[in-house]
Amino acid sequence: MNGEGRKKRKGMSILVFSGDLDKVLAAFVIANGAAAMEVPVTLFFAFWGINALRREERVRLRSKKSLVEKMFGWMMPNGPNRLKLSNMHMGGLGSKLLKREMSKKGVLSLPHLIDKAREEGIKMVACTMSMNIMGIREEELIDGIDYAGVASFVDIANESESTLFV
Amino acid sequence: MNGEGRKKRKGMSILVFSGDLDKVLAAFVIANGAAAMEVPVTLFFAFWGINALRREERVRLRSKKSLVEKMFGWMMPNGPNRLKLSNMHMGGLGSKLLKREMSKKGVLSLPHLIDKAREEGIKMVACTMSMNIMGIREEELIDGIDYAGVASFVDIANESESTLFV
Amino acid sequence: MNGEGRKKRKGMSILVFSGDLDKVLAAFVIANGAAAMEVPVTLFFAFWGINALRREERVRLRSKKSLVEKMFGWMMPNGPNRLKLSNMHMGGLGSKLLKREMSKKGVLSLPHLIDKAREEGIKMVACTMSMNIMGIREEELIDGIDYAGVASFVDIANESESTLFV
Repeated sequence: MNGEGRKKRKGMSILVFSGDLDKVLAAFVIANGAAAMEVPVTLFFAFWGINALRREERVRLRSKKSLVEKMFGWMMPNGPNRLKLSNMHMGGLGSKLLKREMSKKGVLSLPHLIDKAREEGIKMVACTMSMNIMGIREEELIDGIDYAGVASFVDIANESESTLFV
Repeated sequence: MNGEGRKKRKGMSILVFSGDLDKVLAAFVIANGAAAMEVPVTLFFAFWGINALRREERVRLRSKKSLVEKMFGWMMPNGPNRLKLSNMHMGGLGSKLLKREMSKKGVLSLPHLIDKAREEGIKMVACTMSMNIMGIREEELIDGIDYAGVASFVDIANESESTLFV
Repeated sequence: MNGEGRKKRKGMSILVFSGDLDKVLAAFVIANGAAAMEVPVTLFFAFWGINALRREERVRLRSKKSLVEKMFGWMMPNGPNRLKLSNMHMGGLGSKLLKREMSKKGVLSLPHLIDKAREEGIKMVACTMSMNIMGIREEELIDGIDYAGVASFVDIANESESTLFV
């Protein structure tokens, strides 16, 4: 946790704070690239970034949401197909063109990059504090996600060679 | 400064460049979390991030500002209560709902997180070059802030286990 | 690439993902500051960040662009003088005032910072995957740039003391 823990440092960690399509894409491209080079990677999703992990379909919740929690859920994009570009979104035209070019040029789409990351064993952690604030429940997120708080992120950052805030 | 300095590396540093409420919140949540785990933290505030440290009340300046410096001062949010969300700000409704949920769920507000960081001895440094460009004076910022330039940030980053650009 | 490579770690790397004037300025101020302290720096430009390296003048292309590639080229800013602020851009007034204040206060402008970075031998790498997706060609970027993919970025990050995602 402090200087003494340095011997074990390895790999890369990425705090995916943004829910912008372009930035989430960057996080997954880097993560999959690192995994292909056998560099261990952990993706920690907080705040807007958690929207990238939401299931598209509505799920039956174990407990009811408050009105404000429902509103957050409606206003935020659910899943990788609904994320918006940070720039040049242009009502969806920008994202559509970007996805088209990626597909034409053989670059995996975000949903495929996420699937690949799970297959490669890239650790994905969702921030429980962000989920609590925004009223997002575990059953609303895709499978294969771990759940942890900020202390866990600090540990991950301290154990990694490099940490990016995306 | 270079490879030789590695023995002394410890803790975490965060360059708070953004003045968005959500990102400044993230920086202080991580910083306070790390401090609670006895991981030393330095927050370096540059550009928009400096707005989080501005006093809400008007202060008597030691020297006059130019018109452009006054304009920057008027247009930028003064203090943590005026910061806007990077997304879903919706004329202030988004921030209001977020703050309400945080309070309901026992998460400290940004002004309280800043107070706590100062009590915990988290080092907070304001970038003098940014302040010079935007015409912000030391007397306009809250107490307990150090002042330094970019060389100081490079040193801090080199002495830290991990550095985040927020 | 993994823990074994740690002995060689040194310096700083910055992934310039953003094409916002303020963030690109921050990246070059930090990079030039680090270089002045003899800390080795690598700037890796991806996605919007590549726009900072585009030549202002139109260049003769070796091969034709598709319509979508041309559209991307028209809509994105070409070169450091056309980048927009992430906040307070106000149709260009904000950037104009910022540049005026920087010049009045003796801070190098972005084009000058870029020139200085090249003179100082700061390594600048453009992400070939981003260029491929957006249809940007090598002949459209300024001289002195290296070209590499994501694997190269992972290596750079692993060899640096600190890595920033800007």
